[in-house]
Amino acid sequence: MTQQPFSAVRARFADASTTPRAYLEQHLARIAQREPEVKAFAALNFAGARAAADESTERYKAGRPLSAVDGLPLGIKDILESEDMPTGFGSPIYTGWQSGRDAAAVYALRSNGAIIVGKTVTTEFAARHPGPTRNPLDLTRTPGGSSSGSAAAVADGMLPAAMGSQVIGSVLRPASYCGVMGFKPTYGALNRGGGYDNFSQNCLGVLAHTLPDIWAICHVIAETVGGDPGCVAFQGGAEPAPARRPAALGLVETAGWSKAQPAARERLQAFRTWAETAGVRVLDRRATPALAAFETAIADAADVSSGINAWEFVWPLGAVARHHAQLLSPSMRERLEQGRKMRDADYQALLQRRNAMRTAQQALRGTLDALVTLGATGSAPVGLEATGDAAFNVPATALGAPALSLPLFQVEGLPLGLQLIGFPGEDRALSAMAGWALEFASV
Amino acid sequence: MTQQPFSAVRARFADASTTPRAYLEQHLARIAQREPEVKAFAALNFAGARAAADESTERYKAGRPLSAVDGLPLGIKDILESEDMPTGFGSPIYTGWQSGRDAAAVYALRSNGAIIVGKTVTTEFAARHPGPTRNPLDLTRTPGGSSSGSAAAVADGMLPAAMGSQVIGSVLRPASYCGVMGFKPTYGALNRGGGYDNFSQNCLGVLAHTLPDIWAICHVIAETVGGDPGCVAFQGGAEPAPARRPAALGLVETAGWSKAQPAARERLQAFRTWAETAGVRVLDRRATPALAAFETAIADAADVSSGINAWEFVWPLGAVARHHAQLLSPSMRERLEQGRKMRDADYQALLQRRNAMRTAQQALRGTLDALVTLGATGSAPVGLEATGDAAFNVPATALGAPALSLPLFQVEGLPLGLQLIGFPGEDRALSAMAGWALEFASV
Repeated sequence: MTQQPFSAVRARFADASTTPRAYLEQHLARIAQREPEVKAFAALNFAGARAAADESTERYKAGRPLSAVDGLPLGIKDILESEDMPTGFGSPIYTGWQSGRDAAAVYALRSNGAIIVGKTVTTEFAARHPGPTRNPLDLTRTPGGSSSGSAAAVADGMLPAAMGSQVIGSVLRPASYCGVMGFKPTYGALNRGGGYDNFSQNCLGVLAHTLPDIWAICHVIAETVGGDPGCVAFQGGAEPAPARRPAALGLVETAGWSKAQPAARERLQAFRTWAETAGVRVLDRRATPALAAFETAIADAADVSSGINAWEFVWPLGAVARHHAQLLSPSMRERLEQGRKMRDADYQALLQRRNAMRTAQQALRGTLDALVTLGATGSAPVGLEATGDAAFNVPATALGAPALSLPLFQVEGLPLGLQLIGFPGEDRALSAMAGWALEFASV
Repeated sequence: MTQQPFSAVRARFADASTTPRAYLEQHLARIAQREPEVKAFAALNFAGARAAADESTERYKAGRPLSAVDGLPLGIKDILESEDMPTGFGSPIYTGWQSGRDAAAVYALRSNGAIIVGKTVTTEFAARHPGPTRNPLDLTRTPGGSSSGSAAAVADGMLPAAMGSQVIGSVLRPASYCGVMGFKPTYGALNRGGGYDNFSQNCLGVLAHTLPDIWAICHVIAETVGGDPGCVAFQGGAEPAPARRPAALGLVETAGWSKAQPAARERLQAFRTWAETAGVRVLDRRATPALAAFETAIADAADVSSGINAWEFVWPLGAVARHHAQLLSPSMRERLEQGRKMRDADYQALLQRRNAMRTAQQALRGTLDALVTLGATGSAPVGLEATGDAAFNVPATALGAPALSLPLFQVEGLPLGLQLIGFPGEDRALSAMAGWALEFASV
């Protein structure tokens, strides 16, 4: 990664020591060089991006940028509609499909001056079947999924930031594997309109290199188009909160612990030691009954979420399967079959189990400030046929809680994220703790 | 209306004294005769309908119908996607637009044997700007909106049933004006996927002539694709509950009372007298403090709902307005401007006011079994430039409560509905009371 983060370079747009167009060109050059190998994009629009960058350049020259994201080159996960590029949902059924409009988040960002450079590769319908993207840090490895192209493009310096979405672990896992920051806010905080599905755990998210870039993007979306209908929009603020050391953290193992690489567990232990040395109380399931109860509650988060998704997938998959069943991957067909065996009563039982997890997290209020765990079971697995294990990511999604993966660890010379999980609605407090946790990087 | 309701004719499919194809042909003949004047349809697919009816006929012959809606000729409000016809959303921006897939409800109904005959006219994006549909009972009058074509087609005998949707009063008002039954279930009860928006009050609904037809449609949707993600699916049962006289009803005037035609108020008074004579306690705001509090809570339901919708419309309208602003109606442009002046904090304040209405309804539990009011301010207004006043309909929508308009009244020789509003989740209990209320028709 050779480019500066947007938040660092933006001040220089104001004094004209560089321009949005020049900043864009650095990224386009990197894309031209690296995309043939990394395969992060489902579509690109260099001409449109250049025209938008020139307009942004003029606005900065006139001293009238539209917002804190004016001039930001951005990738859009190909699960979100865009007016100027096809939206393929990672499925051959939709190759070349054009909705003709921007999804809510894309509309918000574009109308605030962000430069939409391309659509980034998603797994099929943001589920398991992978696209062609490779991990830019090691082309033999998966970038993770489902926001595969967003993570790879940002990690490789092809873009400073990209939009993703997460139903299970689709933002934080690829962020962890690719060594970038990944953030999913509180459920409902960013309007998902024009984003394929309205699933009950799905949440838009952002992949970038800095908290200020992530926060600016979320803030602009919330200010312009709000959150999901009926929900509270992102409350994190225009910028992350000043770094603040938490009083107490809960170290959670999740169902992923037994699957984690030993070196990954050691890194989390090192973070714990560092935090304790800094005066933070780090609690865990062994000494804190409420955390033990929470771990029990989230132990089957993967099964519960998978069942919820199977039922919620019955419609969109069933409708396309009427004529294109042969174009669905085997894993997608299997999920459709799973869903079709369910009834609403089964679904309601799963929603109740998910609510029990949420109640268990609420019971931790007052005892600790945030939860901390790994961003993935370890470094990105070798091979492109699967996108890795989401065991560490699914609890935060099922909780509807804000979660960040911070690229603080290395395992086998490859990145691994530290995951911070906040209480729903407390995205701002999470940013303060994340600012503090980033100091671990300089240890 | 010359055709028999589907629930009445379906038994004859089994003994082959008639067939789904023959039943369809009666409706197609009526459409051919009347559609040039009524203009209920945005698109028609006679060939597809005939093929589907023939398949249904074969299934009944073989003794293997797919469901209780097998062979039901159905209209689909043109706000719901359909695989075989364009979806226009009542806007010239989308004329001829094809999504290539069925919306969740359409998928559920079609895959259970229902025959999708056509797309029925909606107002622009299911809001205020009317389509060309006329009231079949008096062509100089509005059919109401936004489910204009669905109400007109059913009222005129062109179809036995049609799907609608309601954000303010878009199912019950046209039902009242056209003299058919209109039902919106509890919020979230019918999966809205592929139905344009995910607005926080929007709900699919059904227009038909009988409770059994309406219940069969809702049940099949809920069984096949469930409710909205995260919500409880329709719990009303496969058939309406046996008719049952309520112990106590709350007569609510709503903000519409002062606007209601005197003859309309008299009809509601006649119903009250009839109910009281039958032994029902009919409470009102004057004698029952909890009802007075409820009336106060819902007094500004129209303003609250309008503001909520304006904010929720910012994205879908804003995205298309980037290139097609001149193709939006003046009322739609005005709504977009209203929404753009808002921020999430304004929206949250409106959601809180809406929650206060819901709390006020919950406070009536135990005191009464259902609320009763008018389906509209009176008979359908003359003129096609507006779709009438929704003052009587917006409370139930804002409450997320199940509501039925029953064609029990006449004013100026034109129909007017009695509206029954249940408690959220109690759609089945509402059907029992509706079965009893229908006895008023024979008085």
